[in-house]
Amino acid sequence: MPSRRELANAIRALSMDAVQQANSGHPGAPMGMADIAEVLWNGVLRHNPGNPHWVDRDRFVLSNGHASMLLYSLLHLSGYPLDIDDLRDFRQLHSKTPGHPEYGITVGVETTTGPLGQGFANAVGMALAERTLAAQFNRAGHTIVDHHTYVFVGDGCLMEGISHEAASLAGTLGLGKLIALYDDNGISIDGDIEGWFADDTAKRFEAYGWQVIRKVDGHDPVEVATALATARAETTRPTLICCRTVIGYGAPNKQGGHDVHGAPLGRDEVAAARAQLGWSHPPFVVPPEIYAAWDARPRGAALEGEWQARFDAYRATFPELAYEFERRSRGALPLAWSETVQAAVAAAQAAGENIASRAASQKALNAYGPVLPELFGGSADLTPSNNTLWKGSQVVSAAAAAGNYLHYGVREFGMCAVMNGMALHGGFIPYGGTFLVFSDYARNALRVAALAKVPSVFVFTHDSIGLGEDGPTHQPVEHLASLRVMPGITVWRPCDAVESMVAWQAAIERRDGPSALVFSRQNLPHQARDAARVAAIGRGGYVLVDSHEAPELILIATGSEVGLAVAAATELAAQGRRVRVVSMPCTEVFEAQDAAYREAVLPPACRVRIAIEAGATLPWYKYVGFDGRVIGLDRFGESAPAGKLFEHFGFTVAHVVQVARELL
Amino acid sequence: MPSRRELANAIRALSMDAVQQANSGHPGAPMGMADIAEVLWNGVLRHNPGNPHWVDRDRFVLSNGHASMLLYSLLHLSGYPLDIDDLRDFRQLHSKTPGHPEYGITVGVETTTGPLGQGFANAVGMALAERTLAAQFNRAGHTIVDHHTYVFVGDGCLMEGISHEAASLAGTLGLGKLIALYDDNGISIDGDIEGWFADDTAKRFEAYGWQVIRKVDGHDPVEVATALATARAETTRPTLICCRTVIGYGAPNKQGGHDVHGAPLGRDEVAAARAQLGWSHPPFVVPPEIYAAWDARPRGAALEGEWQARFDAYRATFPELAYEFERRSRGALPLAWSETVQAAVAAAQAAGENIASRAASQKALNAYGPVLPELFGGSADLTPSNNTLWKGSQVVSAAAAAGNYLHYGVREFGMCAVMNGMALHGGFIPYGGTFLVFSDYARNALRVAALAKVPSVFVFTHDSIGLGEDGPTHQPVEHLASLRVMPGITVWRPCDAVESMVAWQAAIERRDGPSALVFSRQNLPHQARDAARVAAIGRGGYVLVDSHEAPELILIATGSEVGLAVAAATELAAQGRRVRVVSMPCTEVFEAQDAAYREAVLPPACRVRIAIEAGATLPWYKYVGFDGRVIGLDRFGESAPAGKLFEHFGFTVAHVVQVARELL
Repeated sequence: MPSRRELANAIRALSMDAVQQANSGHPGAPMGMADIAEVLWNGVLRHNPGNPHWVDRDRFVLSNGHASMLLYSLLHLSGYPLDIDDLRDFRQLHSKTPGHPEYGITVGVETTTGPLGQGFANAVGMALAERTLAAQFNRAGHTIVDHHTYVFVGDGCLMEGISHEAASLAGTLGLGKLIALYDDNGISIDGDIEGWFADDTAKRFEAYGWQVIRKVDGHDPVEVATALATARAETTRPTLICCRTVIGYGAPNKQGGHDVHGAPLGRDEVAAARAQLGWSHPPFVVPPEIYAAWDARPRGAALEGEWQARFDAYRATFPELAYEFERRSRGALPLAWSETVQAAVAAAQAAGENIASRAASQKALNAYGPVLPELFGGSADLTPSNNTLWKGSQVVSAAAAAGNYLHYGVREFGMCAVMNGMALHGGFIPYGGTFLVFSDYARNALRVAALAKVPSVFVFTHDSIGLGEDGPTHQPVEHLASLRVMPGITVWRPCDAVESMVAWQAAIERRDGPSALVFSRQNLPHQARDAARVAAIGRGGYVLVDSHEAPELILIATGSEVGLAVAAATELAAQGRRVRVVSMPCTEVFEAQDAAYREAVLPPACRVRIAIEAGATLPWYKYVGFDGRVIGLDRFGESAPAGKLFEHFGFTVAHVVQVARELL
Repeated sequence: MPSRRELANAIRALSMDAVQQANSGHPGAPMGMADIAEVLWNGVLRHNPGNPHWVDRDRFVLSNGHASMLLYSLLHLSGYPLDIDDLRDFRQLHSKTPGHPEYGITVGVETTTGPLGQGFANAVGMALAERTLAAQFNRAGHTIVDHHTYVFVGDGCLMEGISHEAASLAGTLGLGKLIALYDDNGISIDGDIEGWFADDTAKRFEAYGWQVIRKVDGHDPVEVATALATARAETTRPTLICCRTVIGYGAPNKQGGHDVHGAPLGRDEVAAARAQLGWSHPPFVVPPEIYAAWDARPRGAALEGEWQARFDAYRATFPELAYEFERRSRGALPLAWSETVQAAVAAAQAAGENIASRAASQKALNAYGPVLPELFGGSADLTPSNNTLWKGSQVVSAAAAAGNYLHYGVREFGMCAVMNGMALHGGFIPYGGTFLVFSDYARNALRVAALAKVPSVFVFTHDSIGLGEDGPTHQPVEHLASLRVMPGITVWRPCDAVESMVAWQAAIERRDGPSALVFSRQNLPHQARDAARVAAIGRGGYVLVDSHEAPELILIATGSEVGLAVAAATELAAQGRRVRVVSMPCTEVFEAQDAAYREAVLPPACRVRIAIEAGATLPWYKYVGFDGRVIGLDRFGESAPAGKLFEHFGFTVAHVVQVARELL
């Protein structure tokens, strides 16, 4: 029977060999955390490599994602479908072992990490999802949701601001099944961290209400196991286990220094480490007895089998709950969904209300929410402004675990990363609100959602200078453009209550990536539409108002500027001009339509075009070319009432008509 | 003689009246913090309203910027040039009293605040600037730099992640003259914060190494004054004073609740508050004896006069230091600057090195650094990757105050906001590095710099898929585009060492806004240029390679794709094509050139154009129109060696030539 140290050394050997083979990567953290990981994975973690999608598995997150070889080694050794050739292909094009762990690329990777601190916040989201799902579905004598979330964090994660936001929230919520293991190795890229990171981290986490286990020797399996047992025994507070480790443990000449962090050890040092560790096997060779000791499939199958028996008993007693649990875990929408949407969209078109799109967003939540128990909402302390609370919202707190709404506090980045964690956990469609301008604070969480194809729904209100008096610090100008250039996220800016209803539909139905729903503070006029036009909203761009004959001018607009375009078109039509108005609530979806549709909406023959949007002009040159014009805003706004600002910056019928006449 | 409470009530009255008049704004925090502000401003703050630019003034930052009427009231009452009509114009177009405090709009406002937490980080930067400047200039018996930085923070600031980054850094650096006053009122927009913010904030700050003064009654002037004295007596640790306050203090029916946070009190409640406070004066009327007691000009003039005498003595003893101090305070470049730049640029062109632009950036620092003692560098824990350390760098720490380089730790947002604070303080040109992809983490600090016209220099390396194996989490794709759409920031992406030298020149010389310098990880080929072309780099875009006759095709490229464009042009020329290559390192600067220059570079007659950039395509349609093409990347990258990625994604001569032939 191999020793624990020998099992851990398998991680060390694979990690240093793969980094050496790739001539690129981070051996230090995998070698430093190998003992901790070995104890967790072989002694504690409840998972089944034979079925990586078992819904009640413990979740494991490697927030210090540069230690990817640690995770790949664990997945390989414990029996996930990641073979030795995959490890040999570390960091090569289209391999299953990219430089940082990527959700969707490697089975068993629970989230995409690398951007520091976010994995930790994802883990908070997973733990919150577990607790909420447990409260919603478990019944007396029938515990079907009961797992832990473990997250490894490094010094870098804990320096990042998001660690504060997520840890504070987890402490406030009392997420007792969240266990963080801190790789306290004293080294970051610039060297010994004492010059720039002198926090008493244990005390900081105690200030958040966490249980903190201090000064664990991260190379002593007994100490680590004891700490994990203490952590698991605590049920009302998250736990931070502070593990002192030596970065690059086992590399005799480089361990403990920053040279071992992010570069191959070199052939000589790899050989020296083999000798130091007593690991005599060639690169990428792990002896059968080590594999056998690591293989978690038998235990995993037993664990899942035991759970399946419990779930079968649950299903027998609560068939409807079991059905709902399976539906939500699968991410399938309810049967009533399509009907609900059709009725709501039609009702909105019929009602014809002139309301702010943030109010329309709330109406969408009220319409869809009742059939979507998986909706989990919130706001970064702007609930009354974002209109994210709907009539079925129940607030979650430490005491109330079964709700569907969280006051995230003033924590935009933390909120969005927590949402990503909830979505990745499964069972929820998270949405969360802030002002559009503060999407900046959360921007990299949006990016990780887009990259990892996480269907979070980001609600961004107060979408332009229409925000008014709060002024330019709060008025987005460049944000629509900067979100549109991000791959993989769809950005909707609806022009009225009907488009808002469709935007929410699209966001809910999208299962392979995030959506940003961008809403106005101010009232927007309702637009008349026949059934075909209502149906066309979902194509991202459509002809809202058309000329009787082929257009000589096309006005393209989004959101609050659609009403302006329609008014200008009306005036130009009265002057005998043939003007088409295209409403373009979502450029990404419009671009995904076939060429025939796109050219029907924007005929190539008509090159006289004006795009109108109260924001940066750059996105629109693609649609207007050299012969058109963009009416936008390439400077910051001002503090003044919204109406005065739109007038001041030229968002008036007179100005649009003037530009049109210049072009025609 | 008015009582302290009466003096504070002047703030309350002005604040509630201005918000009422504007029918918009935040009365709660000004009314809650009025007593604290009165003690600080009338009893402690060393400033001179008669000369708001006195370099040795204490700095005051209102990080909870929505409390803007508190600051405007203080400026007005203490004698800054902000009259009562300015207060009446609160939140109106082009007034001096915008919704949130804006640097450059209102004299006496030290930084733009509103985006929560950033003012706090700016204050850390100001305190760091003071300490560094003091260490660089003070001499035995000659103390010419000696002031404090005071910052008001609310619950929102302390929930934000950036508060962690900045507080941790301030504690590590031991910034003893930084004093934060925490408005602990228990209310944020969503209501009572206990549901989402249960931190023991005092304990958290102790964990950062701060002196913390707990449980001060923020409505008791004696307690506040005592706490401030304790804070000022501590010289090696920053201090947090936790002041318990009642939000909206004085509004009898609304105080203590969130209704008073962000909406006018209403006429009845304003009247009730007048009665409650015993403030019988009409709106916007302050009795002369109150004004007289607030007037800080006489004391300010005396303080500045005393300092001036000290400075005169300093000048007499250290004339060269005094000259340098004044030069740096004024933000003027040294006399040797132009000559240094000319020589360095010419030398780079002559050397013709094929190096990574991040290495070229370091060469620029080595060339310019010796004549720029005001340069203050750093990196968010990527010093060896960003190449931000130059031969003259001296690391700053708690023990070593006189240096010019800071290891910021893994704190991108904190770093950029601290840099902004240093630049706003004066005496420094701060630069700081991270990977381009992690500009996301700091994005709103870049925005505040752009809005407030702060000349911070942001160094972003690893600018494309050229980053290679670390993969898509670390590879920027959309970032060039998303920075270019932000108003007010100039974005340089140089193609070789010469353009890198010019980009640094432009960033240093720019005094009215921030620059982002975007550099490659990988080597880039040197480009041949005559003197005219070298001179043209500074115009943002120029003809690098031209056809003998009028071009039939223009290739436009930036950074690492310029070499590709030149190679493709060479091949096309060999095939008899008339091809021009335009290098466009900075679109903002190019756009600022006159039309004649722009049309000379990009003749409107030539509509066949290909833009090439290893990033999002959207910025380039403006330059290629409907008849051109963009070769870019509208998806996330992959983890692989850089060379393989460029090939995989079509950044090859063969592909460019093929596209050109399709168009021609």
